[in-house]
Amino acid sequence: MSEVRVAVDVMGGDEEPQVVLDGIAAALAADPELIVLAVGPEELVVPFAEKHERVEPLAAPDVIEMGDDPIKAVMSKRKSSIVVACRAIKKGTAEGFFSAGATGAVTAAATAYVTPFKYEEDGEQHPIRPCITTALPNRKGALTVFCDMGANPDVEPGDMLRFAQMGAAYARVVCGIASPRIGLLSNGTEDSKGSHFTKECFQLMKGRLDGFAGNCEGSDLVSGDYDVVVSDGFAGNVALKATEGCAKFILSELKGAFLGSLKGKIAAFLIKDSLAEIKAKLSGDAKGGAILLGLKGVVLIGHGATSVEAVKNGTLATAEAIRAGLVESVTSAVDSIVIK
Amino acid sequence: MSEVRVAVDVMGGDEEPQVVLDGIAAALAADPELIVLAVGPEELVVPFAEKHERVEPLAAPDVIEMGDDPIKAVMSKRKSSIVVACRAIKKGTAEGFFSAGATGAVTAAATAYVTPFKYEEDGEQHPIRPCITTALPNRKGALTVFCDMGANPDVEPGDMLRFAQMGAAYARVVCGIASPRIGLLSNGTEDSKGSHFTKECFQLMKGRLDGFAGNCEGSDLVSGDYDVVVSDGFAGNVALKATEGCAKFILSELKGAFLGSLKGKIAAFLIKDSLAEIKAKLSGDAKGGAILLGLKGVVLIGHGATSVEAVKNGTLATAEAIRAGLVESVTSAVDSIVIK
Repeated sequence: MSEVRVAVDVMGGDEEPQVVLDGIAAALAADPELIVLAVGPEELVVPFAEKHERVEPLAAPDVIEMGDDPIKAVMSKRKSSIVVACRAIKKGTAEGFFSAGATGAVTAAATAYVTPFKYEEDGEQHPIRPCITTALPNRKGALTVFCDMGANPDVEPGDMLRFAQMGAAYARVVCGIASPRIGLLSNGTEDSKGSHFTKECFQLMKGRLDGFAGNCEGSDLVSGDYDVVVSDGFAGNVALKATEGCAKFILSELKGAFLGSLKGKIAAFLIKDSLAEIKAKLSGDAKGGAILLGLKGVVLIGHGATSVEAVKNGTLATAEAIRAGLVESVTSAVDSIVIK
Repeated sequence: MSEVRVAVDVMGGDEEPQVVLDGIAAALAADPELIVLAVGPEELVVPFAEKHERVEPLAAPDVIEMGDDPIKAVMSKRKSSIVVACRAIKKGTAEGFFSAGATGAVTAAATAYVTPFKYEEDGEQHPIRPCITTALPNRKGALTVFCDMGANPDVEPGDMLRFAQMGAAYARVVCGIASPRIGLLSNGTEDSKGSHFTKECFQLMKGRLDGFAGNCEGSDLVSGDYDVVVSDGFAGNVALKATEGCAKFILSELKGAFLGSLKGKIAAFLIKDSLAEIKAKLSGDAKGGAILLGLKGVVLIGHGATSVEAVKNGTLATAEAIRAGLVESVTSAVDSIVIK
């Protein structure tokens, strides 16, 4: 291990800031070389830093709310925890950032301040659009890398190609899958399926993407038939939340079945360990969060409905990604990348 | 009850045609005023009609495969079961059609032969784009109407408004919801969320759609917070299949938990009735199928992974929709509809 400096958004997530502070304390206990920049209101982060070694307070009086327009909020709330943390990466005082705050705002601030890598096209340099990437457990007991989970509702086919290249590199580096099979999220697996937009993406990927396995569908987020599923951020977000919503629905139905009768209660007692395992697998808390790929810095986004465990794991995962040089190695898989 | 004539696609679905024939026989037994036009290869439908009263054979030697391009297949395979059945509605020999075949091909054939109602805009008449609609069970123990499930991957905001109006009318007529709350499927519930396309839809619906409740997200297919969820057919299909895929994943994990140990087997025995109920609720077989709204005829599409029970229920649901005048009453909710 080596010393790393991670900024953590104390105001991120739907829970009280104390949940985040407890999560930071747990992460510090687990990683002796971790230094945390606690970013949030002075009255919270200064006393917290006084009580904990290896915590530096970073005052940020403003808060970006879940409902704020991401770009406007990032422009107007320059002293929000999200913007202050991203500027700390730019200045070099932090190497990475973990937030369970508004995904759109974190993406907008990171794009503006952490700055994306560039790629060359037609003799000109353009910034890579960062995409939110995670690895989901699948039916085959392995992981499926999924991107973009929601950073970019409107993209071009070229952006999709780069998302796929970064997703495939993430599958190689993080999940150890040597030759990932990449599926393009569509409304059916046949080559003829898709919207006008995904059909353009299909043609581009067919010619230029190693490991391209054609169209896949919503169920392939968890089928295990593809190692990487690539989508624009709109359909990606819809698919992910549909999956989460269905999981919650079934678990609540099961709860009803278990608690509705004495027989059910006995059954629940008998298989409680297996049920806890299934629930943990689905919750995502263990994974720490999703990473923004394409940026010159490690930015992890946790689920808004957060917990102490989730903040701990997210902070530790950010530190690990910094140590592994993850962002650089993944981004370098993009066609005609410019690394400076 | 009154006599109704329903065409059934013997070649629809991923199973053997015998599954469909058994489903038809079960439907005939349940509905004494039902007449079925069995549409498929002569060597299958003629002997079947000889063995069953109230079955008329309709020879269709061609088959449209799941992978065929829908529009090309409908144009070139004029003697396929799907095209022959839709032409029977046009001719008036059938009043409705049930198929578990390729959704795209059924939609294309129905649009071409069953013909959509028209609406007036800028002094001109245009055909309504048919949308695939169904009612899904939700967490509150009620139903959520969802459209478009996949007929139209590329649409205009005006099409989305009409889908929403038809979906809301379906919620009133079929589900008995007096004032349905309508959500626009997006990547978040806040007004600021969405793609360029859904933001245009949002503005149009805000001004013209009764019961419009703003943006909703993938999890709202089952949350019960909206009575109608409206989407284009691309995102709609992705959301639906993500939900199905997640349900399969959890049920297979549960199966593993139950069968993995003696304790698990005892637990499964204790709550087997509740589990069967949950599975039935999720399977969709009981609902019969999704309906194509906007057409001058009743067309129901079943799930490709079909069963005898699903074909029986789909055929009976088609008969019921004809008797209830469902299509006319739902379509008449569209702004400036032209009913001839």
